[in-house]
Amino acid sequence: MRQRVTLMDTTLRDGAQSSVVSLSPEDKRSIARLLDDLGVAYIEAGYPRPAQGDADAAFFRDPPALRRARLTAFGATRRKDADAASDAGLQALADSGAEAVTIVGKAWLWHVTEVLGCTPDENLRMIEQSVRFLKDLGREVIFDAEHFFDGYKHDAAYALDTLNAARRGGADLLCLCDTRGGVLPDEAADIVRAARGATDTPLGVHAHNDAGMAAAVSVAAVRAGCTHVQGTLCGFGERCGNADLIAVTLALQSKLGYDCLPPDSLGRLTHAARRVSEICNLTLPGNHPYVGSSAFAHKAGMHIDGVLKNPETFEHILPETVGNTRKLMISDHSGRAQVLSTLRRVVPDAERGGEEMDRVMRALRERQGLGYGYEAAEASFELMIRDLLGLYEPAFEPVHYTVFSGWEAPDGGPSDNARAMVKVSARGEFSLAAGEGDGPVNALDAALRVALEPFYPRLRDMRLTDYKVRVLNPSAASAAFVRVLIASTDGARDWSTIGVSTDIIRASWQALYDSVRYFLLEDSSSCP
Amino acid sequence: MRQRVTLMDTTLRDGAQSSVVSLSPEDKRSIARLLDDLGVAYIEAGYPRPAQGDADAAFFRDPPALRRARLTAFGATRRKDADAASDAGLQALADSGAEAVTIVGKAWLWHVTEVLGCTPDENLRMIEQSVRFLKDLGREVIFDAEHFFDGYKHDAAYALDTLNAARRGGADLLCLCDTRGGVLPDEAADIVRAARGATDTPLGVHAHNDAGMAAAVSVAAVRAGCTHVQGTLCGFGERCGNADLIAVTLALQSKLGYDCLPPDSLGRLTHAARRVSEICNLTLPGNHPYVGSSAFAHKAGMHIDGVLKNPETFEHILPETVGNTRKLMISDHSGRAQVLSTLRRVVPDAERGGEEMDRVMRALRERQGLGYGYEAAEASFELMIRDLLGLYEPAFEPVHYTVFSGWEAPDGGPSDNARAMVKVSARGEFSLAAGEGDGPVNALDAALRVALEPFYPRLRDMRLTDYKVRVLNPSAASAAFVRVLIASTDGARDWSTIGVSTDIIRASWQALYDSVRYFLLEDSSSCP
Repeated sequence: MRQRVTLMDTTLRDGAQSSVVSLSPEDKRSIARLLDDLGVAYIEAGYPRPAQGDADAAFFRDPPALRRARLTAFGATRRKDADAASDAGLQALADSGAEAVTIVGKAWLWHVTEVLGCTPDENLRMIEQSVRFLKDLGREVIFDAEHFFDGYKHDAAYALDTLNAARRGGADLLCLCDTRGGVLPDEAADIVRAARGATDTPLGVHAHNDAGMAAAVSVAAVRAGCTHVQGTLCGFGERCGNADLIAVTLALQSKLGYDCLPPDSLGRLTHAARRVSEICNLTLPGNHPYVGSSAFAHKAGMHIDGVLKNPETFEHILPETVGNTRKLMISDHSGRAQVLSTLRRVVPDAERGGEEMDRVMRALRERQGLGYGYEAAEASFELMIRDLLGLYEPAFEPVHYTVFSGWEAPDGGPSDNARAMVKVSARGEFSLAAGEGDGPVNALDAALRVALEPFYPRLRDMRLTDYKVRVLNPSAASAAFVRVLIASTDGARDWSTIGVSTDIIRASWQALYDSVRYFLLEDSSSCP
Repeated sequence: MRQRVTLMDTTLRDGAQSSVVSLSPEDKRSIARLLDDLGVAYIEAGYPRPAQGDADAAFFRDPPALRRARLTAFGATRRKDADAASDAGLQALADSGAEAVTIVGKAWLWHVTEVLGCTPDENLRMIEQSVRFLKDLGREVIFDAEHFFDGYKHDAAYALDTLNAARRGGADLLCLCDTRGGVLPDEAADIVRAARGATDTPLGVHAHNDAGMAAAVSVAAVRAGCTHVQGTLCGFGERCGNADLIAVTLALQSKLGYDCLPPDSLGRLTHAARRVSEICNLTLPGNHPYVGSSAFAHKAGMHIDGVLKNPETFEHILPETVGNTRKLMISDHSGRAQVLSTLRRVVPDAERGGEEMDRVMRALRERQGLGYGYEAAEASFELMIRDLLGLYEPAFEPVHYTVFSGWEAPDGGPSDNARAMVKVSARGEFSLAAGEGDGPVNALDAALRVALEPFYPRLRDMRLTDYKVRVLNPSAASAAFVRVLIASTDGARDWSTIGVSTDIIRASWQALYDSVRYFLLEDSSSCP
């Protein structure tokens, strides 16, 4: 029988601790829904604190509706020399309403005496009483034994005592943490086996990637007896990141016979990883195992020949397994099915091997080379196909735009607002309009609407809902290519468009222009 | 006694096989010199082929002068049913003049019969004769047993036969390759032990990172008996890359007691990794183990407090060991201790409970409410403190800027370039300058430099290295707040600055302005 391993994704808690990640409540809800959809067992969503206006507490007060995952709140053991029942931190956890709670406590004696500055016994009481406080309220409690591996190497008996304190408090699971991220897989396995021998409570592992081995450590820990793994979908997290749950899941589930996710989720991992990266505004490196854009890219001639004979000659797993695609330098078959399905919205009888398909594939590769990622801009992709095949009936033509953005020292008067002029032609007439706004893109948007409203009053129903900017090749610094994604809605439908340019305003204009002309398409039933 | 492990860096051969890397001969020479300077034993520099105008062959004809490393040429076994002495590929290797040669041959029986299409025995002869041909010419020969691990799992006896064929040919070292990158560490260790039992010739390991475990596999292989590791300095390579030699070296050398590099090289690893990335035109991710810019970045308040007491509380290795630096991030997670340490760079005797500290904390919270995330913009944080306390001696004052960015329909002529005007005052004089560039930020940057250069010629030494844009509250769409982060360098120091505004150009201007005025600070020793 295949053994089950539960996953806890902590992108929203430990991942958000990465120096470059900052998530809005809406971002957090989107990520939680993606993880829930994958079938992750626990989603650690934040650290509710007693402070007024605490964003994490607010998130738990208005949680996203999840189908399968348990939303988990993170917190620490009670303060030293205090009472659990009157501890503000534990009360905040209780008030969060989360059904499952992770409580972190120190398992390294040196930390207890040097950092916490309390006695070894008081630390054990803090652990036991904090766990019991939350168990008495009916919560599922996972004890995160901070620095367990380093603590075990320093004083094994004390590290095991902390586990037993949590067990006495009623903890449902004891999670062994490699907080500094420096433990090696063999070492981790030995220490897990020792912990396994010391308690009957289920064990978990929480590894950091400072030595570049967090996934290997997690897998070794499972083979040594853990049944729970904490990490983040793309490995995002403080310093060098957390264990990458994708690498862990694929090793356990497709190589070693454990069950981590429902089998039909694996094929959605690439999509989910890219969406999470996008929301975190982080670049998923092309060489990211399993889900990177080059993870299945073959360049060497011998390798391509082999893959064409049989992909397994040079692939340990097929890209479809994780929803990724193979890239061969000579003939790219990637994503044809998806391209065909978009093409058929425009040309219903298009064929897989047909001439339109060929033209679209060629244009797609060319545009991808320029930085157009159509995955998150389906409307622009459809417009690109229409433009290419001469199947776009223009609702209007842009003639020019100019944007002015400036600033003067305060004594010269404020001039923060940006101004824009836009000229369009439609139905044989020209229309020139001006707009202002908080920034050049807002001003452009305003001017374009004013210019078009005489022709298309229904533009009033449409508005932009999201605006994202991504710098594509940061090495060129301020002249780098930028990719702008705009999401729009008319209340009934949502669509997304893209623009790419070295000029951030030009890229924004392209995405704005696509958004408006997509809305104005005659056959609006084709909206994705 | 510490056991020696020789490293072979194959950035110039396997690394160059990455779908996104393309190296000029001068690039290759620069990388070879960096690797030689680190004390890497072997530098695999290319695959010389019989073709006329072959770039790799040309490289070997005019090799860089190296102090310690052996420049190694890569090639394959002779063609099937042919003679080694008349094989054009082997002859090209011989002609390369390389003292050391890597010969790759197939160790997976399925590949022999299905891909190569030859008999098992002929493959063994190909291996033995090819190795002997080069040994007879006095070369050091390393046999790369392609797909050894997968081959062993499929037909162990045959995989071992291929090693013995190479041994009979006189191979100096047998390198076991995980060509598909899917083997797991424990499995690799078992198979290395089996190979170790079957031959006395020294063994090596060559792992790929498709399962995210190449470094762990390499370390496991060494512990099981290998004395040689092939990989690339930053893990660059085809698909998901090769074993990262930095992670491998640090695990072996600082945790397990092996010697891979001269001890004084470790402190140059960060510099070397960043230079190699730069030459390969690849971004080294901030979270890259040991050498990434955020590898030692602490954001959580508890972690910062711990690190300030003793870095080993939250670091498994000190950043100095690898020539990297610690970053303590200012954020809502971070405590007063970190703010105090930055404040003390400006006011050395500031106190935790002092009045300056109170003013800084209040200002910090206010700025955070506006969207300033100083965690990745330490230089702007220091400037904010200086401004607040009246301890900033302005190098110049901005008077105004105006940016023009426009576009016209193609028949009206192209106008993609943006233009900007900037006026500043410094030393009682005004300076007005214009600039143009690929986009408004690039144009502003150009204009600001021209305006300031009469006063500060050393601005020529400074350049921007990264530009990031983040939309803060996407629900407001095109009028959303944007946060711009700019990273800058003068070759010796790196610093980061921030700007926040609804106007993306205004936000970029703020970050640019901070970057320049930080560079011009009199007391430049305070750079983070």
